[in-house]
Amino acid sequence: MAIRLFVTGGTFDKEYDEVRGRLYFADTHLVDMLDMGRCRLDVEVRTLMMVDSLDMGESDRELIARQCREVAEDQIVITHGTDTMVDTARTIAEADLGKSVVLTGAMIPIAFGSSDGLFNLGGALTAVQILPPGVYITMNGRVFDWDKVRKNRDTGVFEEIEA
Amino acid sequence: MAIRLFVTGGTFDKEYDEVRGRLYFADTHLVDMLDMGRCRLDVEVRTLMMVDSLDMGESDRELIARQCREVAEDQIVITHGTDTMVDTARTIAEADLGKSVVLTGAMIPIAFGSSDGLFNLGGALTAVQILPPGVYITMNGRVFDWDKVRKNRDTGVFEEIEA
Amino acid sequence: MAIRLFVTGGTFDKEYDEVRGRLYFADTHLVDMLDMGRCRLDVEVRTLMMVDSLDMGESDRELIARQCREVAEDQIVITHGTDTMVDTARTIAEADLGKSVVLTGAMIPIAFGSSDGLFNLGGALTAVQILPPGVYITMNGRVFDWDKVRKNRDTGVFEEIEA
Amino acid sequence: MAIRLFVTGGTFDKEYDEVRGRLYFADTHLVDMLDMGRCRLDVEVRTLMMVDSLDMGESDRELIARQCREVAEDQIVITHGTDTMVDTARTIAEADLGKSVVLTGAMIPIAFGSSDGLFNLGGALTAVQILPPGVYITMNGRVFDWDKVRKNRDTGVFEEIEA
Repeated sequence: MAIRLFVTGGTFDKEYDEVRGRLYFADTHLVDMLDMGRCRLDVEVRTLMMVDSLDMGESDRELIARQCREVAEDQIVITHGTDTMVDTARTIAEADLGKSVVLTGAMIPIAFGSSDGLFNLGGALTAVQILPPGVYITMNGRVFDWDKVRKNRDTGVFEEIEA
Repeated sequence: MAIRLFVTGGTFDKEYDEVRGRLYFADTHLVDMLDMGRCRLDVEVRTLMMVDSLDMGESDRELIARQCREVAEDQIVITHGTDTMVDTARTIAEADLGKSVVLTGAMIPIAFGSSDGLFNLGGALTAVQILPPGVYITMNGRVFDWDKVRKNRDTGVFEEIEA
Repeated sequence: MAIRLFVTGGTFDKEYDEVRGRLYFADTHLVDMLDMGRCRLDVEVRTLMMVDSLDMGESDRELIARQCREVAEDQIVITHGTDTMVDTARTIAEADLGKSVVLTGAMIPIAFGSSDGLFNLGGALTAVQILPPGVYITMNGRVFDWDKVRKNRDTGVFEEIEA
Repeated sequence: MAIRLFVTGGTFDKEYDEVRGRLYFADTHLVDMLDMGRCRLDVEVRTLMMVDSLDMGESDRELIARQCREVAEDQIVITHGTDTMVDTARTIAEADLGKSVVLTGAMIPIAFGSSDGLFNLGGALTAVQILPPGVYITMNGRVFDWDKVRKNRDTGVFEEIEA
């Protein structure tokens, strides 16, 4: 059975605009990253949106949750901006899908040579195959239940909290 | 509780000798890789050897298994050359340690810009936290029980086999 | 005789702030770049400022010109933001130093894997050794006299103009 | 007028064979490198051969010299393995073409993230536009006349010698 990979944007996919000197979104790097990881899983990639997660609204989260419900796959990885990743995880958890859903992101854009993205993607694709149905966040080696994690805005680090 | 990371060499850590134009081993890249992945796990790294896995003998595998037994940690990741990774996994499994041990490697040296190593390391560190005690191989997104996998020497790909 | 390398900032040295998700300046990458290029020249690196060239004022340009005059070296490379590189070149040319001065920059930060910076640095260090005294800009393979070039703001490309 | 870029192989273009774990030649990376350098020159790339320069014979060098003569361009850059680069430079010099020919190479394959190749290519393309007719070697920032340079086999470094 294939794994579904939903792309929503986030730091993962930010590009550098060399004329204007700022970051923006173009196409996703996820397919290239699966190639670089020589990924031997059957992964179906679909881009749902390409936004900074600070710009996501509740309707965006509902759309993501609905897509998770509608696809045939029971194992779903979502690449997502880190700032509101926990919020989207909650919306999906509340949809009570009975599927394994893992959200992941990156602190550094993939387009930079030194991104953590490939490490995080390897973790997310591994976690989604092993974990029981539920909604999880994997970042920087750690695996969190959706309701026991927050992003520390000062340090940028995902931390465990009491549920 | 910390995760133990044992380094044994393999493609992961091969360097390019610019004077002689060939590949060789120097220091491990694993600590740099944990940095690049912004890894937030408590990982203790120890280099046990730095060899091509084709050059490993049974005494090397016994040493690795003994180290797995003796360290305090119950979650152990081993970076290893791919050619005899399955053999070392078997030696560790036969030691019957009651720990979670995950072996991983790379098809392309880390020193190359396009290595699969960071993806594989993310997968291995994630798997070792979730899987029940046992010996496993994670490569290129896939997770295998030690006795249900072989490396296809023609394609370089790890494949599932009947146990 | 050594070559003097003055660092002033610009896209060359922009970093990605992983907590705030924006670009900023920290330390220069120039020494690392000379290492990557296995540069065998005697290059003396000094950071004069670390700014976006849009934020440079006339006093900054005067400072750069004065430094060019005061150092012992007759061959000087300056890394500089592209937006006002031509303006700084003019200020240096007007100082009439009788030295070979080459300004260069990058369209993409060095911290990104795919920067043009190493290519441009190789060009600038080569040009400064060969060209007669004067002030030049080298960008993306091209070599311009300071008074025959402008940056096209729409395309980001340096173009030849009539002096 | 365009610059001609002849590709002959060498460390520049070595790839890592992930199944066999050794270095080999496939397609050239030179076009990708010109893209990465955002090169704005009119460069015509042609691959003449794809070999380790230790495997070049005198007929190979004659072929390269003949190609240099026959192309319309008067500015020619040649990417070449470092071990016999000086020998090929001599063969071309003896052909007495009245053109500017610059040979360059790399200590580290381009396919590695930390290659000196982009730096060297930037230097060679710059040198060929500025230098008077003659045959030159540019490596690691330095510019040599063809008859005043040798590769130090122990250190891998190109050094100036008395002509």
